[in-house]
Amino acid sequence: MSYARFQETMGRINDVLCTVNLLNWDARTQMPAAGSATRASQIATLTGLARDMAVSDAFAAAMEGALDELSAAPADDLRRRAVESTKARVETLRRIPEALIRESADLKTRAQTLWAELRLRNDFEGFAPTLQRTIAIQREIAAAIGYERHPYDALVGQYEPGMTLARLDTLYGELKAGIRPLLDRALGLEPPRADFLARAYPVGAQRRFGAEIAARMGYDFARGRLDDTVHPFEISFTRNDVRITGRFRETWLPGGLFAVWHEAGHGMYEQGIAPAFDRSAFTTDLVNLYAVGGASFGVHESQSRLWENRVGRSERFWDLHFDALQATFPEQLADVDGLAFWRAVNRAAPSLIRVEADELTYDLHIILRSEIEAALIGREIEVADLPSVWAEKMRAYLGLEVPDHLRGVMQDVHWASGMVGSFPTYTIGNVMSSQFFAAASREPDIAAGLETGEYVPLATWLNENVHRHGRSLTPDRILQQATGSALDAGPYLSDLARKVDRLAATA
Amino acid sequence: MSYARFQETMGRINDVLCTVNLLNWDARTQMPAAGSATRASQIATLTGLARDMAVSDAFAAAMEGALDELSAAPADDLRRRAVESTKARVETLRRIPEALIRESADLKTRAQTLWAELRLRNDFEGFAPTLQRTIAIQREIAAAIGYERHPYDALVGQYEPGMTLARLDTLYGELKAGIRPLLDRALGLEPPRADFLARAYPVGAQRRFGAEIAARMGYDFARGRLDDTVHPFEISFTRNDVRITGRFRETWLPGGLFAVWHEAGHGMYEQGIAPAFDRSAFTTDLVNLYAVGGASFGVHESQSRLWENRVGRSERFWDLHFDALQATFPEQLADVDGLAFWRAVNRAAPSLIRVEADELTYDLHIILRSEIEAALIGREIEVADLPSVWAEKMRAYLGLEVPDHLRGVMQDVHWASGMVGSFPTYTIGNVMSSQFFAAASREPDIAAGLETGEYVPLATWLNENVHRHGRSLTPDRILQQATGSALDAGPYLSDLARKVDRLAATA
Repeated sequence: MSYARFQETMGRINDVLCTVNLLNWDARTQMPAAGSATRASQIATLTGLARDMAVSDAFAAAMEGALDELSAAPADDLRRRAVESTKARVETLRRIPEALIRESADLKTRAQTLWAELRLRNDFEGFAPTLQRTIAIQREIAAAIGYERHPYDALVGQYEPGMTLARLDTLYGELKAGIRPLLDRALGLEPPRADFLARAYPVGAQRRFGAEIAARMGYDFARGRLDDTVHPFEISFTRNDVRITGRFRETWLPGGLFAVWHEAGHGMYEQGIAPAFDRSAFTTDLVNLYAVGGASFGVHESQSRLWENRVGRSERFWDLHFDALQATFPEQLADVDGLAFWRAVNRAAPSLIRVEADELTYDLHIILRSEIEAALIGREIEVADLPSVWAEKMRAYLGLEVPDHLRGVMQDVHWASGMVGSFPTYTIGNVMSSQFFAAASREPDIAAGLETGEYVPLATWLNENVHRHGRSLTPDRILQQATGSALDAGPYLSDLARKVDRLAATA
Repeated sequence: MSYARFQETMGRINDVLCTVNLLNWDARTQMPAAGSATRASQIATLTGLARDMAVSDAFAAAMEGALDELSAAPADDLRRRAVESTKARVETLRRIPEALIRESADLKTRAQTLWAELRLRNDFEGFAPTLQRTIAIQREIAAAIGYERHPYDALVGQYEPGMTLARLDTLYGELKAGIRPLLDRALGLEPPRADFLARAYPVGAQRRFGAEIAARMGYDFARGRLDDTVHPFEISFTRNDVRITGRFRETWLPGGLFAVWHEAGHGMYEQGIAPAFDRSAFTTDLVNLYAVGGASFGVHESQSRLWENRVGRSERFWDLHFDALQATFPEQLADVDGLAFWRAVNRAAPSLIRVEADELTYDLHIILRSEIEAALIGREIEVADLPSVWAEKMRAYLGLEVPDHLRGVMQDVHWASGMVGSFPTYTIGNVMSSQFFAAASREPDIAAGLETGEYVPLATWLNENVHRHGRSLTPDRILQQATGSALDAGPYLSDLARKVDRLAATA
């Protein structure tokens, strides 16, 4: 009875948080700008209601009752784990003052709208007071959650349980050491042709081609849809309705295509959660007050990166699918072949924009952002310093001058959304993507499928080993079970090295 | 302090109900069909939360405290009226059992999806059990609310406060007596040409033309949008975000156009509510648990009908705007002029489909539905009888045989949505539309504007006299203040008679 009561309330919390996702999806894809102020109230009210339900005495009593009821169940009984993990998360949540959560949710929608407007006018100063308040809230949240060594740990841990600034510094050290020589080698090669990527590709045809490949990878459009937005994202309202968004630009073909496959990778994760986990603790993130089925942001990103980069940027992929792309854009691609296309979309070229960065430079963008946000949270720098710090690091890591805020500190929506501590999960996802891909590729049918463009075996393996578990296992356990090892930069650096080898061999 | 507490909770209830509106809008315009089951849970949970907040002891205490605080305020003080009307509505709401509301909300989404599917397969029997449960719930709700003479009174009163079956019978009697001779006379005339309405009109151009005129009427696209759906509707998430939907079919030009102007009329009402009423008692219907700014369904319909019929189907309107329509569709309308177009869209022709009915037969469709649903609620007939009763009345009122359920009992979404008692408000709206239009047209600048296609004076008058008041005045008081009289079929019958005269004169 108590477990049933626990589950009933859990389901209602999930309903409210799925609805907050809809409010956010709508705000970023459909809503007229005038709706922003009252939309912020709506999101704040619903987030507050979800929090009230989660921290209520009635829910605490239901959890205690459920634990009594399940005291004879084995420790890995799913119901027992659901209650135990929920209890731990509610305890963290209780430490964050309600007023802070409410203000944060309220600020988020307004800040995103302001960001979308002011970035086009290169107006960082206009945005700074809003961002200042956002950062102040995040500092307060870090203090409320608590941490051992650095306040940033509390924030990273929200997105990637167990991750800390110290562990990140080690990982980043390995990556910097591994990537630098690969990047130098790649930049020493004759640059591949890439002029044809910037020809005029009608947006509708890009969207159709991108969606066809996404469906082939396994994204189920009967339980999803693809809409336009400024900064692409994936969001779900249970596994039955998992939406992806894209940003297609006529004169930059890879931008739209790879983003769709990236978001489709996220989408397949959410669509692949076990149906029994609908409206449950295993599809609800009670710390971030967010309905999501993925185990962590890093594991989520591993799925998007796997389809975008391990599959979509592989040499074999373009052997197989270039003809279809050429048939879609016969004039634009008349003087190109599959190998040239593959080389173009793997061209190493330090750039200003993270979402357009090639694989070799991408993690340097992330390391830059991680270091800056950790310093912001640690009060080593302030919001007013951001443009100069950004410019400095961009020079040091990528050798580039920042010409304006749109191509600098205002390019990403994350900080405007109050998502401080989430950037590292992109690099964690890259690293994990190679671990999962290497383990999966050892299966003969998966390897054979990658040769023939038949992606069902790979998608099935990912579903079995990653997706279906939802949040019922920790990231570490999923990684260990699926690959036999802990987080390890090795396979990722090997993948990058192999790519540079092939670029050199085909130059 | 107590009034502030009342208003704070009222605002949060409005946030939740605006969000339910978004869940419904999305379900009917964007959602993949697979999302239906969990969407129903989401709507049920949020509706339940809104109800919990409305009937909570804390809210009751805030209302009592607010009334104490405002005891010295005059009786028509807006704050005092907000609390008093809310208190009365919460009392009605308390009489409806929570489980019933929850089941009704849950059933609604599933029933709508099923209806949309089964109607295309002419499968009334497949839909009957779901409809049966919907009707049973409505009967229970009528019993819970209470009534003096007929259970239908309790349901009609939810949508049109003060309306009863007895009053409707009188109104319907007047209308039948007035309309019948007009219809006979119109049907005796040489029928206007209408063949050109069914030519191929590309849907995109229809949508653009419809939207341009809607904007000219005063619908503000900066605070709204137009999407496609099966059955057009208007819905709002505060005055800052008021969305309309349309259904355009290539070979039936008037269907899409007039529906857009109809929904734009609803939209202008919601966009025109006083900004101070955002998130307040005056934009929240606590009996229907629905966020809406209009005073009643009938007053709402008067605004849509006014723009659709009093303006959009007037002879002068097509004198003014036919050239633009012809420029949009030069080939399709090469052999047509403004007068011929006006005559075509006012052709009296008994038809099977309510939303395509001409003005002279429209109310007969409503009277048919009202009588059937009143009999259903009064247990004089059952769901299984619907097709035969429908066929019988269609024969009696319009002389038509019903060939299938899609063109019969399954054509409207209302019963699938549990909206029993709302049909009469369409006819009430027609009647009121002529009352408002007659009163407004007595102003010289409005009359002059209608001659030149300048609709700002009319829109301004409607805003001043109707829109801005939101739900702060009763329908009767709005009508009395604006027109100087109570509900009166006279002006409507005069408008219809004048139209038949002009059809005869131009035949």
